[in-house]
Amino acid sequence: MKTGNQDSSAVKAPDAARAAGTDYERIFHPRRVAVAGVSPGGGVGFGTRYLTSLQAIGFEGEILPVNPKGGEIAGLSIFKNVEDIPGELDLIVIAVAAEAVLPILEAGRKKGAAGAVIITSGFRELGTSEGIGREDEVRRIAASGIRVIGPNCFGIYCPKSGLTFFPNPDLSRESGPVAFLSQSGGLASDFMMTGMWMGLRFSKVVSFGNGADLREAELLRYLADDPETGVIAMYVEGVRDGSEFLDALKAAAAKKPVVILKGGLSSAGGRAVVSHTASLGGSRVIWESVLRQAGAVQVRDLQEMAQACLAFSLLPERVYRGLSFTGGGGALGIAACDAAETFGLEVPPLGTDARGRVEALLPKSGASGVNPVDVANPYAPPALLEKIFRAVAGDSRIDLQILIVLTHHFKGLAQDQGKTIEEVFPYRELADRMKAVAVETDKPVVFVLPNAKRGFPDMDVVEIHAKVREAFLERGLPVFDEIGDAMRAIGHVNRCYGKGETS
Amino acid sequence: MKTGNQDSSAVKAPDAARAAGTDYERIFHPRRVAVAGVSPGGGVGFGTRYLTSLQAIGFEGEILPVNPKGGEIAGLSIFKNVEDIPGELDLIVIAVAAEAVLPILEAGRKKGAAGAVIITSGFRELGTSEGIGREDEVRRIAASGIRVIGPNCFGIYCPKSGLTFFPNPDLSRESGPVAFLSQSGGLASDFMMTGMWMGLRFSKVVSFGNGADLREAELLRYLADDPETGVIAMYVEGVRDGSEFLDALKAAAAKKPVVILKGGLSSAGGRAVVSHTASLGGSRVIWESVLRQAGAVQVRDLQEMAQACLAFSLLPERVYRGLSFTGGGGALGIAACDAAETFGLEVPPLGTDARGRVEALLPKSGASGVNPVDVANPYAPPALLEKIFRAVAGDSRIDLQILIVLTHHFKGLAQDQGKTIEEVFPYRELADRMKAVAVETDKPVVFVLPNAKRGFPDMDVVEIHAKVREAFLERGLPVFDEIGDAMRAIGHVNRCYGKGETS
Repeated sequence: MKTGNQDSSAVKAPDAARAAGTDYERIFHPRRVAVAGVSPGGGVGFGTRYLTSLQAIGFEGEILPVNPKGGEIAGLSIFKNVEDIPGELDLIVIAVAAEAVLPILEAGRKKGAAGAVIITSGFRELGTSEGIGREDEVRRIAASGIRVIGPNCFGIYCPKSGLTFFPNPDLSRESGPVAFLSQSGGLASDFMMTGMWMGLRFSKVVSFGNGADLREAELLRYLADDPETGVIAMYVEGVRDGSEFLDALKAAAAKKPVVILKGGLSSAGGRAVVSHTASLGGSRVIWESVLRQAGAVQVRDLQEMAQACLAFSLLPERVYRGLSFTGGGGALGIAACDAAETFGLEVPPLGTDARGRVEALLPKSGASGVNPVDVANPYAPPALLEKIFRAVAGDSRIDLQILIVLTHHFKGLAQDQGKTIEEVFPYRELADRMKAVAVETDKPVVFVLPNAKRGFPDMDVVEIHAKVREAFLERGLPVFDEIGDAMRAIGHVNRCYGKGETS
Repeated sequence: MKTGNQDSSAVKAPDAARAAGTDYERIFHPRRVAVAGVSPGGGVGFGTRYLTSLQAIGFEGEILPVNPKGGEIAGLSIFKNVEDIPGELDLIVIAVAAEAVLPILEAGRKKGAAGAVIITSGFRELGTSEGIGREDEVRRIAASGIRVIGPNCFGIYCPKSGLTFFPNPDLSRESGPVAFLSQSGGLASDFMMTGMWMGLRFSKVVSFGNGADLREAELLRYLADDPETGVIAMYVEGVRDGSEFLDALKAAAAKKPVVILKGGLSSAGGRAVVSHTASLGGSRVIWESVLRQAGAVQVRDLQEMAQACLAFSLLPERVYRGLSFTGGGGALGIAACDAAETFGLEVPPLGTDARGRVEALLPKSGASGVNPVDVANPYAPPALLEKIFRAVAGDSRIDLQILIVLTHHFKGLAQDQGKTIEEVFPYRELADRMKAVAVETDKPVVFVLPNAKRGFPDMDVVEIHAKVREAFLERGLPVFDEIGDAMRAIGHVNRCYGKGETS
């Protein structure tokens, strides 16, 4: 990572004073949004797709389409020029050809828009003097009074206001604690989609592409103080100003968890970064030590990032040292212990009291009440599991309980009984009882739902598996597919909240 | 790991001479199988479930049910005693109560069966003198002329003969190169199910439970010389005789890849091993160094084991140093490079020739022909991808090509066009063309199929994703869900086949 301003442009990076003046409220919750670059002829260019996505997600503000040809689109009159729009403008989304971006941005600024999202590519990332010059002009206009997201980006997703990300018409309107910053729009899109089914809900997502104006450091400072954001995730290819970024990161990480995925740490990856977002990469060792010192949670890929965010979203802010495992059978219990140790977690044997109470509930043969608790029955009734969990929670060495549920086993049971899996697996009752245990004992219950049947003949298992996940998540109980994923995510929580600890 | 015989029994471990006399052919491909412990009254005890599983999978030999009450089951007459069965017996499967096992095993031996599978539990794993004594008796009978699998096990799966594993009635009859040995039946069952959808096909799977007689070392020697087995996977909790196991492992690993998952390396895991299969665990450091010296491929969990087996099954036996990535977009290409480096793989920039030919095929803006190749179009037609892959294969630094396919993007395209995903995604054509490229260029093509849409509203994507996977696997092309999984598996292949290399 290099420090200091890396850009050839003479325009100064936005300073703190200017950042303080940025009207983020109008950028993230705009009431009037212009969309420049719609296709009145029924084409499906970027502007049109953005506009229809806004309508599909149910944006409640006013959408003001712009195209020099005029006409109508999706029930809205098209303005020939930005200047023709009557009244105020909060945000302008620009999806015209690269050559036409600058005058429209300038028109948006004159119109008093607080921000502009430039989806269009063809700027610094081209590596040509034309592209770089065009981006310098974007920064010049931005510096004179409008904050720019982009160019070469997918923009902003803010479920509360209904502002959506290009080109995602089917994102949720449900808000949550996770904010996400990314240069890459594709990765942001993948992260949001993956996050959705994993159980993440978002406060704000910003893909800032080339980041000509607003980018990592400023956005990090904003999110650190945003009351709607509980955890900040970031995908970083390179940063503009290393020391400014580190200051912002330290300040943010002191307030809430900041989970960072750094792309391009390998030599080939670094080469690919240059052609992707024209950023400077940097060596693995330097990045890793700098991020660690700044207090960031470092992850290796998108899945790990989403899993860590899920744990930070749903687990109370504390350190979880001692874990219990229940269900799943002998070998899975052993795997759970091994994975726990890998991520610095303990699986203490239950004390005499708790063990006695658990063993009184278990069959005499094939079961184990030590920890892992092996109930020796893949179909153990929810009422029995509840009793076991209440007994285990009585042990002071246990901080968090894990239930391993093997949904696929219920397919066999359903076949034997001539019923559907839904009929033989009372997962909603299980979710309710586990929620009650977690609340009343003040020890979180985390689910691990491995699914060994994911092939084409087992789509019924896949479907019920997705429903079971939903039922647990709806009650605020974290769900992971694999034991290792759960252990890794809880390990991140511990390292983050245990920063001041000596152990 | 301890060396020497750890058992209290006075019975000697079967020696090499005896192993040489074991009639594995009659054990794995029996023509006449007795099943002791069926329930004539319509109950669904273990014996009955085993018998119906044998019928369901289509076992072609003769099934001979045994129960002292006689009667009929599933269209077959029940013999009151093993002695009453006329003619020869190859294998006897025993699922009666623990107290009744010994006389039936002895009867099977007298009847001349080559092997017995004892599913019943209630032996050494109880930790009681009664259980240990009973297991010593099993070994005594075994030593006098019958090879025993078990007790406390799920038995044998051999798709060629139609011998199935308890309690899996829906395993494939398709044979393949993967053999699997496991003490744990549950883990073996999960591994087979997971392996099935991932694309593994099996030669022989043995769950030997307590391993009173036949177990890891002898079975390893048998599989090392089994022409139907191309890769051996093992789940090990503990071994009976450390030095004998290591000798067998070294000998096997010199002939074919041996992939080992060692359970119970953590202190809590080691404790859990004792109550699961009554084996001795051992320290992580010792196990890891010993396994490495023996030439085994070490993996951390069931998924990694299955992925490694898939790579060994489908990739020709050689070292793959230089990789190319195509598709997926900028950030995924960067992630691919980073993951490659983590597992010792290279992503060399294409040489001038190949790069020129690739760039001539790509759009001018947003694409990259360096490597990773970014086609800047999630819907790139198969014919275009084929041309790109042929051009890349012309570069001598590329040993293997990866195509990243984002199936979920086709959902948006399908919605735009009012069609199904199946109609807009020509994945069978893609599979055919990639198969042709792989064969004609003699450079394998590996697919990475991340799926960001796995939630309940996207079951159509999940289903097509499973079909796409099947289409590639049917043509012998390896498929992985995540880039990191693919890199890790190829890394295992390289370390295994590159053992003699200096680099």
